[in-house]
Amino acid sequence: MSVAFIGLGLNDERGLTIEGLEEARRSSNVFAEFYTNIMPALDRKKLELLLGKKIVVLNRIQLEDEGGKQIVEAAERGRVAFLVPGDPMIATTHISIRLELAKKGIPSKIIHGPSIVSAVCGATGLQSYKFGKSVTLPQEPGVPGSLLDTVRDNKTRGLHTLILLDVRPELSKQLTIGEAATKLVVADPGLRNWMGIGVARIGSEDELVGSAKLGKLQNQDFGRTPHSLVLPGRLHFMEVESLRAFCGAEDEDLEALK
Amino acid sequence: MSVAFIGLGLNDERGLTIEGLEEARRSSNVFAEFYTNIMPALDRKKLELLLGKKIVVLNRIQLEDEGGKQIVEAAERGRVAFLVPGDPMIATTHISIRLELAKKGIPSKIIHGPSIVSAVCGATGLQSYKFGKSVTLPQEPGVPGSLLDTVRDNKTRGLHTLILLDVRPELSKQLTIGEAATKLVVADPGLRNWMGIGVARIGSEDELVGSAKLGKLQNQDFGRTPHSLVLPGRLHFMEVESLRAFCGAEDEDLEALK
Repeated sequence: MSVAFIGLGLNDERGLTIEGLEEARRSSNVFAEFYTNIMPALDRKKLELLLGKKIVVLNRIQLEDEGGKQIVEAAERGRVAFLVPGDPMIATTHISIRLELAKKGIPSKIIHGPSIVSAVCGATGLQSYKFGKSVTLPQEPGVPGSLLDTVRDNKTRGLHTLILLDVRPELSKQLTIGEAATKLVVADPGLRNWMGIGVARIGSEDELVGSAKLGKLQNQDFGRTPHSLVLPGRLHFMEVESLRAFCGAEDEDLEALK
Repeated sequence: MSVAFIGLGLNDERGLTIEGLEEARRSSNVFAEFYTNIMPALDRKKLELLLGKKIVVLNRIQLEDEGGKQIVEAAERGRVAFLVPGDPMIATTHISIRLELAKKGIPSKIIHGPSIVSAVCGATGLQSYKFGKSVTLPQEPGVPGSLLDTVRDNKTRGLHTLILLDVRPELSKQLTIGEAATKLVVADPGLRNWMGIGVARIGSEDELVGSAKLGKLQNQDFGRTPHSLVLPGRLHFMEVESLRAFCGAEDEDLEALK
């Protein structure tokens, strides 16, 4: 009679915390979804082996259109674990299931996992408290005006913007860093000279972080997804050092951001 | 000849990911610090038992004033693990050690862990992309003008503010939610009627989340630290539902934030 929303972290099944592992092992039913974020090296068989039990994978329709009713029904009978990429509630879609459980008087808890939202600081060397509001760039053609407003608004305040790149659940296909840079430059040619930092496969062995002006990032290939993009604001000197040391930033690009 | 910065997560040694555990186990030296954040249930002996080896705990002076030279020296000889509360680089103090390693040509990587920065979304039901710039409220008397500016600026834009509460390393003493609310109301009596959400011991069995106007939060006791405080901006209806279901919010307080 309970549900634990458990974060799977960033890359493969080893992103699970020990607490999450223990909870899933002692649950009577284990569900998972793999569509709100791409975990490049996650192997379902390995995960099942680690947990010592079968996992029922749910898709977007089952979780959103049908309200995750398999989870709710299983929770009426026993202890349920629901495995979610990253940190569970960063995907806002799952909060409605938690609310539905609360309405039925079924207790739920969250076992947190690593998330792109904090990991991007480590990957880039940019400081957490200097990020403004984050945004998601959709796959649909064009760039929403509100997204451009946010990016400019953050920049005016000297703040960094994390741009999450939309995942198309049906296809597990995500916008790439190059595609995102192109969309931004097409929407506002003035952004061509803004610096961007592409972050690919964060937390994996072949994590790749690279910075350049958006006009140049358009043509760079960061390899397989997941990808995300950061537009830095004003830089602290430690951030300058980090971008140089870990993100291949060139001095002339950095000069403009001090 | 390498260093892995490994996140310990939020509450006890079980916040470590499986990847972090494996990396620490195969390292020749394991260091840790426990002062940048409070992990209420972390037991050093249990952690050592889990890793199968001794841990050298470093303090603020060793890591900041002396630049973490034990870590750098050990990394010149072998494989080093450095365990840090939360997600490692959210504590900006450790980036300088990573830069020092880079200067010496010693490779380093980050094994991410759960962080308050993403976990606060799950605990409150507030949506990640609606948080503006975050701030840290210092222990020193008064409230910096820049902090008040950020809080007001976020509010004007309808954004939430995560207020991290300063930890005094020497004492492992942290500002409490009540003390923070009092400091804010004293600095600006107009804030008395702003809603706040206190988040205590996030990720632990006795996590406590409660919302009320700051004038009322001043006198509420949330028990042991770690504590943090969120000032919500404009609320989406799902956020309203969540605050009601999980944070004990009262209808009259919510009405003002829709």
